[in-house]
Amino acid sequence: MVKQYIEENRERFLEELFELLRIPSVSAQSVHKGDMVRAAEWLRDALLKSGADRAEVMPTEGNPVVFAEKIIDRSLPTVLVYGHYDVMPEDPVDEWRTEPFEPVVKEGRIWCRGADDDKGQLYMHAKAFEALVATGQLPCNVKFMLEGEEEIGSGSLYKWCEEHRELVKADIILVSDTSLIAWDTPSITCGLRGLCYMQVEVTGPDKDLHSGLYGGAVANPANVLADMIAKLVDADGHIAIPGFYDDVRELSDAERRALNSAPFDVERYKESIDIPAVQGEKGYTTAERTGVRPSLDVNGIWGGYIDEGTKTIIPSKASAKISMRLVPHQDYRKIAVLFENYFRSIAPESVRVEVKALHGGQPYVSPTDLPAYHAAEKAMEETFGKTPLPFYSGGSIPIISGFESILGTKSILMGFGLDRDAIHSPNESYGLDNFYRGIETIALFYRYFAEMSRAK
Amino acid sequence: MVKQYIEENRERFLEELFELLRIPSVSAQSVHKGDMVRAAEWLRDALLKSGADRAEVMPTEGNPVVFAEKIIDRSLPTVLVYGHYDVMPEDPVDEWRTEPFEPVVKEGRIWCRGADDDKGQLYMHAKAFEALVATGQLPCNVKFMLEGEEEIGSGSLYKWCEEHRELVKADIILVSDTSLIAWDTPSITCGLRGLCYMQVEVTGPDKDLHSGLYGGAVANPANVLADMIAKLVDADGHIAIPGFYDDVRELSDAERRALNSAPFDVERYKESIDIPAVQGEKGYTTAERTGVRPSLDVNGIWGGYIDEGTKTIIPSKASAKISMRLVPHQDYRKIAVLFENYFRSIAPESVRVEVKALHGGQPYVSPTDLPAYHAAEKAMEETFGKTPLPFYSGGSIPIISGFESILGTKSILMGFGLDRDAIHSPNESYGLDNFYRGIETIALFYRYFAEMSRAK
Repeated sequence: MVKQYIEENRERFLEELFELLRIPSVSAQSVHKGDMVRAAEWLRDALLKSGADRAEVMPTEGNPVVFAEKIIDRSLPTVLVYGHYDVMPEDPVDEWRTEPFEPVVKEGRIWCRGADDDKGQLYMHAKAFEALVATGQLPCNVKFMLEGEEEIGSGSLYKWCEEHRELVKADIILVSDTSLIAWDTPSITCGLRGLCYMQVEVTGPDKDLHSGLYGGAVANPANVLADMIAKLVDADGHIAIPGFYDDVRELSDAERRALNSAPFDVERYKESIDIPAVQGEKGYTTAERTGVRPSLDVNGIWGGYIDEGTKTIIPSKASAKISMRLVPHQDYRKIAVLFENYFRSIAPESVRVEVKALHGGQPYVSPTDLPAYHAAEKAMEETFGKTPLPFYSGGSIPIISGFESILGTKSILMGFGLDRDAIHSPNESYGLDNFYRGIETIALFYRYFAEMSRAK
Repeated sequence: MVKQYIEENRERFLEELFELLRIPSVSAQSVHKGDMVRAAEWLRDALLKSGADRAEVMPTEGNPVVFAEKIIDRSLPTVLVYGHYDVMPEDPVDEWRTEPFEPVVKEGRIWCRGADDDKGQLYMHAKAFEALVATGQLPCNVKFMLEGEEEIGSGSLYKWCEEHRELVKADIILVSDTSLIAWDTPSITCGLRGLCYMQVEVTGPDKDLHSGLYGGAVANPANVLADMIAKLVDADGHIAIPGFYDDVRELSDAERRALNSAPFDVERYKESIDIPAVQGEKGYTTAERTGVRPSLDVNGIWGGYIDEGTKTIIPSKASAKISMRLVPHQDYRKIAVLFENYFRSIAPESVRVEVKALHGGQPYVSPTDLPAYHAAEKAMEETFGKTPLPFYSGGSIPIISGFESILGTKSILMGFGLDRDAIHSPNESYGLDNFYRGIETIALFYRYFAEMSRAK
């Protein structure tokens, strides 16, 4: 009956999602401030229409939180759905084959910024909820908490959660903001890396200098920055910041064997992103390097003349955005301090250095013995025809560990994305199959979660 | 009489220069193609009005060359004036305190892109010429050769010179495109460094990747580029490219002593560009590092997300513009090959590398025993009240060594700029005193050069 309802409303579900996708809710850029509010208001209205008893746009110091709920019986278990309506910036714009904020269906996929991350995935929840309500099958209470700052660190949601503990009280948090290992290898994400995102600026002379008149006698901030970045990771791929690995939990051999038992084809991996060779920390596999080992990446670097042609200058400044993915039990606040101390210690006396922590989040591990985990497992078994594997993702959703520490509530990360969705990249997309199967699976989750909670 | 003429026409000279400065003739940016032609035509007309018998805008494959001449007697010596009407890009635009292309006089200085380099300096020649013609004092033949590609390597002028050897035949080339050591330490530039300007691009994955999902397992082109740049110069400030120093002429102790005898105050130098410390090749002084030693500078670097806020990506590409200043007897073509070979050799197998030579020029040394050198010396003695010192500049005017090899003609680099003019930087300026004293000195040069040539 739920399945049939989804079938009958396929087109409308998609048209609704397209309305949401067209709002360019890029949280990183202040020019989109108004779009954030528009997206939140649109979601409030959509959740009311989907069957919520109550839905509100709740202000924060940053972008608003959309809260909605349907309480059918206070004695029944409650599921809190978390998602985010903000998206990554669309740049580099000229690499998009379609308009970044105009959804297009082609080759069975929705092409648009946010198609997967996270508008497409969060909207599956709205529609699974609608299907359950419309068919009279909703077996438990549901709450929605949708934020607009996930891509910039969820700054406001931590405080909002502290102030609304009662409002969002639930038995489990359900999140679709992750990916499957593959379409034929379904998975539930049990581990997320933490994140420590820094910005650094190296300043030499007070203005750009003529590189002929001064070259050789004055430290060049761009060369110095390159030297300093080179000193962050050693030749074996180990991060060279003193104390960086102090709190890293080393996996047992059995855990490593289990982690490496998931199917992985390195040739296909290389081909899918067109790289000549993989590269990473010595002594670890690709799955370990992204799943259970920390990493350090320059996310952006800039300085000097970057236009057409040549300009012979020593730039006054050079900057970089550098982020580190963290694993249990690293603490991003401690790592930010270690990073800053080390970065300052390797600066030559000929330059001035500024270091700023932009945002961070703690790593997270989700237990696989919760009723909600089994409910997710059973729901996916039914729709995918295979038992999903527990998966350690390299990504970060910093707020997930925040939920545990602030609300004391665990999260189930049942996402339906795929690597090919190119989230955070140009030409983001999301499969129509993923979208509809996601809705169906989520509806089943509610049924099994209610059953298993009763059985407890 | 010449001096009086200059005095009487001060205001008009300045107004004329301002017309030229207002044309944004930025050779590095193709959007300014039309401005290059406008600047050339303006100069043609100005030289005719100043007294040339003939003046033409002569096309090249790139920006046109302005040629003008006044032949008073074929048996008299001929001076060929070289200058360039193209200027550097004005960026970073927001650091200018005035409009980059609207000249303003303040604190006794002209503030505008090109005020010194080289419109202000070349226009002194037009006005010295006018003064000599108008007062009936021109003692020799004069030719002008003004190009529009100096800031991008003078690509077209080499070929143009080869095709117009007879037209530009002269006894000496006179150039004002350099600086004085200081206003109270006049100098004539006897050495120029060569230039080898490269652009490199490091490519990893075919698109920006999510730094969480892939971070640690895929080589990050921005990190790799930083590593590679770090390997270009060692900890002692030596350039690490194998063979790079093979052709560098080491100075004798006597030469080094002479070079270091020019007054130099390192504290004032640091203060003038607001740096905490100088930095350069071990074992050499600041004067040596910029005057007679080669250098390597990153002129620009870019890759990944460089806007406001955070974006968690592994960029697909990272690039840099890297230039090297060369000294006698390095050859920029050989250095470009050595650079490319070394750069490719240090690339990890996980990335693809592109290397492009953007432009280059040979180093130049001017002898101090030419009649023209003595004429310049005597002219400056008269206007500055001090004997100018021979000076080895770190800058490059690649075409100067081209003149010697193509035309067989030596150049006298009698420039009137100062370090504070901030050429190539925001807020370029040129002193009114420099402008007028330059005109006066150039006029005296003609007198003494004609006398000394006769005496020969």
